Amino acid sequence: MFGPVMSSSVALSLRCAASGCQGIRRSIATVISGNKTSKLVRNRLKEEVDKMTSQFSGFRPGLVVLQVGDRDDSNLYISSKLRAAAEIGIDAKHVRLPNTATEDEVLRSIMSINENPSVHGLIVQLPLDSVNHIDSELITNSVSPEKDVDGLSCINAGKLSRGDLSNCFIPCTPNGCMELIRQTGVSVAGKHAVVIGRSKIVGAPMHDLLLWNHATVTTCHSKTPDLPGQVGRADILVVGAGRAEMVRGDWLKDGAVVIDCGINHVPDETKAGGKRVVGDVHYASANQRAGFITPVPGGVGPMTVAMLMENTVQSAQRFLLRR
Amino acid sequence: MFGPVMSSSVALSLRCAASGCQGIRRSIATVISGNKTSKLVRNRLKEEVDKMTSQFSGFRPGLVVLQVGDRDDSNLYISSKLRAAAEIGIDAKHVRLPNTATEDEVLRSIMSINENPSVHGLIVQLPLDSVNHIDSELITNSVSPEKDVDGLSCINAGKLSRGDLSNCFIPCTPNGCMELIRQTGVSVAGKHAVVIGRSKIVGAPMHDLLLWNHATVTTCHSKTPDLPGQVGRADILVVGAGRAEMVRGDWLKDGAVVIDCGINHVPDETKAGGKRVVGDVHYASANQRAGFITPVPGGVGPMTVAMLMENTVQSAQRFLLRR
Repeated sequence: MFGPVMSSSVALSLRCAASGCQGIRRSIATVISGNKTSKLVRNRLKEEVDKMTSQFSGFRPGLVVLQVGDRDDSNLYISSKLRAAAEIGIDAKHVRLPNTATEDEVLRSIMSINENPSVHGLIVQLPLDSVNHIDSELITNSVSPEKDVDGLSCINAGKLSRGDLSNCFIPCTPNGCMELIRQTGVSVAGKHAVVIGRSKIVGAPMHDLLLWNHATVTTCHSKTPDLPGQVGRADILVVGAGRAEMVRGDWLKDGAVVIDCGINHVPDETKAGGKRVVGDVHYASANQRAGFITPVPGGVGPMTVAMLMENTVQSAQRFLLRR
Repeated sequence: MFGPVMSSSVALSLRCAASGCQGIRRSIATVISGNKTSKLVRNRLKEEVDKMTSQFSGFRPGLVVLQVGDRDDSNLYISSKLRAAAEIGIDAKHVRLPNTATEDEVLRSIMSINENPSVHGLIVQLPLDSVNHIDSELITNSVSPEKDVDGLSCINAGKLSRGDLSNCFIPCTPNGCMELIRQTGVSVAGKHAVVIGRSKIVGAPMHDLLLWNHATVTTCHSKTPDLPGQVGRADILVVGAGRAEMVRGDWLKDGAVVIDCGINHVPDETKAGGKRVVGDVHYASANQRAGFITPVPGGVGPMTVAMLMENTVQSAQRFLLRR
């Protein structure tokens, strides 16, 4: 049994000491940089791939990004994944099916990639952009669990949700959030963590990760009546709600670790494109109260691609162990 | 947005009115009977099976209980399952492998039952009692997901944890707890539910069920520092901790729904066997504070077998739909 771990006054004085502030003046939160952390992860992965390549003459981890159709946003995401893979030394291929592809054609394509031994990771870029109806749940679950580096298949979700973390692929965004939490030095075990959102790619797996790292976890969502009250008890708060600046600074527990997964575009006439990107947390007020906070952009965002690379390298390592 | 639903004063006066108490005298909790509720479920299932049998000339839902070895406790559990099945009209078979069975032999037996079209539900009685090492995780996951009426395979856990409730088998104990909560008339959506425990068969799936019935859910466990504080915020409390009478009445929120999954044997010299069964909740103090409470025995226990029957009948219905 132990108390709420790093007390807010200790956190405050630590931060005050670091920033040289004195007396009662509140320090602002320490920023957890996803840009820096993701760079550290990618550098580490590059070293690991170099080691594999020299140890197993020319071996390279292989990744396929399967796209159906030609959505602009998907194209952007895919090119950033391919670029990150190339930098690390992962052999990444972009397989593109036309927007006339049928469910059967997509399934056949997945089956052939599943059977290709030089591919260790396969992701299907969602949403599927086809003129035909395609069951995306079926598609996600057709990716071999051993290559499902997005961690979105039922089997991987089942393992994660029941605590079998060493034997599954963890979805990239929550995995990135955990890496950012680790950067703070705050231990998760014994803390009260609050997750806002229960989506398959953020909230639900985030709950699992925090729980199996031994936090007491509360999941909140659109039907939670007293969201500020719940948030106010969080030592660690992860927000994946998809609502711009919903979480206000005065909701937070003093000294909390705040991880913001939101990416929302709001009108801003001072910007060239007439809009800017904000998170699900109202940053300006939250950083007056939090102990640690992720910015948007430059927080969780860059971690997602880095953790996809991490899963791909891990999959290749497992493949080598099975050989 | 709504408040903590049935306020404790409303619940109290309802119960006072029912019991004829007056003034400030506290009423004791309404007992949620698993004996009665499970009987209702089994009667309903019997009717459904009768209907199937008459509609599809002689068709009967089929269940196999696979046992390895000869543990006394397993024998007891199995005989109660077989008895319940027989009463409902389910064709239940007990397949027994000797305690010298190897993993391969168990797997072959499962494969053959998986392929038998007259079997709609297959459960492997755990723990496996064999002189050989058998990976019980592998065994559990070898049961066809379409016949996994215990709901313990990764695929079923993955679907449940991600909210795909209509398309999976829900583990029997938490499914029984939900049925008992329904009996109270208290709606789950918008409530704050607290689950103590995170096991595969009770705590973890219970969290999922409460969450996807739209409660705000907190999961507590052995590493939760302030368990009384967490419990004190629960409108609905489900305890699957495996520790005799751990939860005390004065921890509870006034009027809470308390579901006790514990089955603990404690010494009692006044009893014939020198021991008696108690739950994880200290009943005598808890029923002074709770709005509704399950007894032990006669609460969650009888529901587990009833929900196994429910899953088997459901599986047979799905089979008929696929024909």
